Amino acid sequence: MTPDEFRRYGHALIDWIADYRSSLATRPVAARTRPGEVKAQFPSDPPESAEAFDSILADLDRVIVPGLTHWQHPMFFGYFPANAPLPGVLADLMSTGLGVLGLSWQASPALTELEEVVTDWGRRMVGLSDAWAGVIQDTASASNLVALLGARERATKFSLARAGLQAEPAPLTVYVSTQSHSSVEKAALLAGFGRANVRAVPHDRAYAMRADALGEMIRADVAAGAVPCAVVATTGTTASTALDPIRALAAVAGRYWAWLHVDAAMAGSAMILPECRWMWDGVELADSLVFDPHKWLGAPFDCSLYYVRDTEHLIRVMSTSPSYLQSAADGRVRNYRDWGIPLGRRFRALKLWILLRSEGLSGLRDRLRRDIGNARWLAERVTAAPDWRVVAPVPLQTVCVRHEPPGLAGEALDAHTLSWSERVNQSGEAYLTPATLDGRWMVRVSIGTEGTERTDVEAVWLAMRRAAAA
Amino acid sequence: MTPDEFRRYGHALIDWIADYRSSLATRPVAARTRPGEVKAQFPSDPPESAEAFDSILADLDRVIVPGLTHWQHPMFFGYFPANAPLPGVLADLMSTGLGVLGLSWQASPALTELEEVVTDWGRRMVGLSDAWAGVIQDTASASNLVALLGARERATKFSLARAGLQAEPAPLTVYVSTQSHSSVEKAALLAGFGRANVRAVPHDRAYAMRADALGEMIRADVAAGAVPCAVVATTGTTASTALDPIRALAAVAGRYWAWLHVDAAMAGSAMILPECRWMWDGVELADSLVFDPHKWLGAPFDCSLYYVRDTEHLIRVMSTSPSYLQSAADGRVRNYRDWGIPLGRRFRALKLWILLRSEGLSGLRDRLRRDIGNARWLAERVTAAPDWRVVAPVPLQTVCVRHEPPGLAGEALDAHTLSWSERVNQSGEAYLTPATLDGRWMVRVSIGTEGTERTDVEAVWLAMRRAAAA
Repeated sequence: MTPDEFRRYGHALIDWIADYRSSLATRPVAARTRPGEVKAQFPSDPPESAEAFDSILADLDRVIVPGLTHWQHPMFFGYFPANAPLPGVLADLMSTGLGVLGLSWQASPALTELEEVVTDWGRRMVGLSDAWAGVIQDTASASNLVALLGARERATKFSLARAGLQAEPAPLTVYVSTQSHSSVEKAALLAGFGRANVRAVPHDRAYAMRADALGEMIRADVAAGAVPCAVVATTGTTASTALDPIRALAAVAGRYWAWLHVDAAMAGSAMILPECRWMWDGVELADSLVFDPHKWLGAPFDCSLYYVRDTEHLIRVMSTSPSYLQSAADGRVRNYRDWGIPLGRRFRALKLWILLRSEGLSGLRDRLRRDIGNARWLAERVTAAPDWRVVAPVPLQTVCVRHEPPGLAGEALDAHTLSWSERVNQSGEAYLTPATLDGRWMVRVSIGTEGTERTDVEAVWLAMRRAAAA
Repeated sequence: MTPDEFRRYGHALIDWIADYRSSLATRPVAARTRPGEVKAQFPSDPPESAEAFDSILADLDRVIVPGLTHWQHPMFFGYFPANAPLPGVLADLMSTGLGVLGLSWQASPALTELEEVVTDWGRRMVGLSDAWAGVIQDTASASNLVALLGARERATKFSLARAGLQAEPAPLTVYVSTQSHSSVEKAALLAGFGRANVRAVPHDRAYAMRADALGEMIRADVAAGAVPCAVVATTGTTASTALDPIRALAAVAGRYWAWLHVDAAMAGSAMILPECRWMWDGVELADSLVFDPHKWLGAPFDCSLYYVRDTEHLIRVMSTSPSYLQSAADGRVRNYRDWGIPLGRRFRALKLWILLRSEGLSGLRDRLRRDIGNARWLAERVTAAPDWRVVAPVPLQTVCVRHEPPGLAGEALDAHTLSWSERVNQSGEAYLTPATLDGRWMVRVSIGTEGTERTDVEAVWLAMRRAAAA
């Protein structure tokens, strides 16, 4: 493709994206495709000869788009908001267009230094002290794994430099909440702790981890000869955005020198609002934390911020220094390859840089407050409606609801819940993802897509009532 | 940003990228910035108010670009070719513009199914049988870690479901080559094996792992009570693109039921050339392999292909199934979250899909053959030049050279090598990355950037001679 062809097709694609984003509201939110249907439209062999870009663009409309669930749709209330505002799209285009990699500082100094700048901006905007330093990871799954590897190596005094985890005498235990994200348990298993050493601490009525229960579990484990290695607290759980009491958990963890990791993947964004900071009170007592600007805040996926207090420890766990990566600048610069798993790194800092400049903190605060206001509005409506119930506190933008018609309970109620939410999804009007709380299905209405206004929340509430009555 | 503003700024950015790519040859290849210089140009606090996009674009030229080392420059001969051809830039723009995520098949069916299609295309184009299935990971670092986690769990019969690695009675050992990529040892340490259980197998004169030495090491370890867990072979090592003898290594590994992982991150791309397939003869006997289309082949970073034969095993190691990700389609579809570490996944399949359609396999083959031809040309010139030496075989596109003036040896020779290569880099004319072989520094000339033609290779050879004579 010549630069001139790139101009032509590039302009066409930019226009296509502008049209796509403008027309989202007219499309069904969820894909209606059946398993295998998209795949069946492609040949089984890769093309031998080059094709014109026009025909590729045409296939985008013909084959790809009908198979998508539209995460940027104003009526998308599933999973979590994964906002990709248009300036962020341009930021990521810059990154790919430049095509530079950050294997080391020297491999592209601006890539590393802008990452230092924006991770520091990220720290300041959520009110963390300068005891923290950050790095961009791809996902909270990776950040959670890096945190537990850090915990493992601190507790074992760097077993990786010796005979590894298997030579450790006492079992290392990890404490998570019953409401922790699936990636936390996965990280514990991948790090080699073993399921038998992962404890699910019970929650209180607000679905927050109970510090007293944590204390009891650790005491029992220590009495049995185990080494309490890590506690993972969550600010904004996946199912219901519950808030674990960080300060109280830190007190328990601190007593046993256990690593405290705070998974604020979802609710970290809300910490740009001073009125929400109480939600992670005590966070300065943690050893590591993650929050994902690629969720509610709006840096296009992937852009997960991982912060630690002890960077020297992180680097000791993660570093390598092969000859082909050594440079004269080492020791005076950051080499972010030593702050996470991958060696190769995209210029992802551009996304956060441009998000913050193009929207400004004040613009981001306004949008988040709009969403929290919409969630409160919906929670009030649900509470006031007969047979409807809000089943968990609503500190942020997720409203967990159940329609409980008289006489329906247990599995019959579960079937009803799954059936009406599936009717909403099938209608194409809106998209919701159900989840379980205390073993019973409920429906999460996760508000916060960039385009979602009060009228959209009114519309989903209407769609929910209609589907439940059907 | 309104859709109309997006059109305007988007067109401007597309034009900017076209200009940037066209003007690369006139820019110094490597950044001449000093540590901290880029960073000092940014405020320490994030902006409170929104700024116009024009001023952001202006900063791109003013602050960012001078701090970059230009990986797409035709005179870039450092590290490895990380090609990002213009159609691939558009492919990645599509992905960000759509802004959809693949947490599960249902979360955006086309994202998953196109990944099935292109990983299968990838398999066919490098001649792998249909016993393999693939997934896109971010980097070979991640793929190598996933491979060693798979090996660990096979050898321990799923210790992660029990008390983890630390409860295993016999030490598990991992065999790598002295020439393995740094991410392989890092993966072994993160997986918990411990440095004491990672064996560096000696190499032969072509820098290939010695199968006889591997056999001896394993026999000794088994006699001492260890369990040989994994062997990592490389097709195209980082320093010199050496080729480990896969078939011979597989015979040794197979005798002990050790997992065989093939790291073909660099040379996997060359397997689209039938005349290169001998280089990984025996690959069908491996358990897992990785190759990175984001290197020489040209899918913009990040796009690493990881293939396994036993997908059921992979899923058992990597899977989670929280309520909020369950769907009616489970069991009939692939959920790629269970094939790697991250839960959230970008629509990366678009990059490979569009690379293959826009260039066609024949176009890609032509480009790779051009690069191999250029490497041979350079190797001949170096060999013929007085005091110059090619210090490793040149099976692919990397030429390892040393200028050895009479009377210079040992550390003095190292100092000379580092000094002339640094002079080339400082000149801005070309970019080279030195590395060590057998404990001595040499200079890698890694050929294969999309824009690198014979005249560029002639130019770097001239620059090298000039710098060495200075």
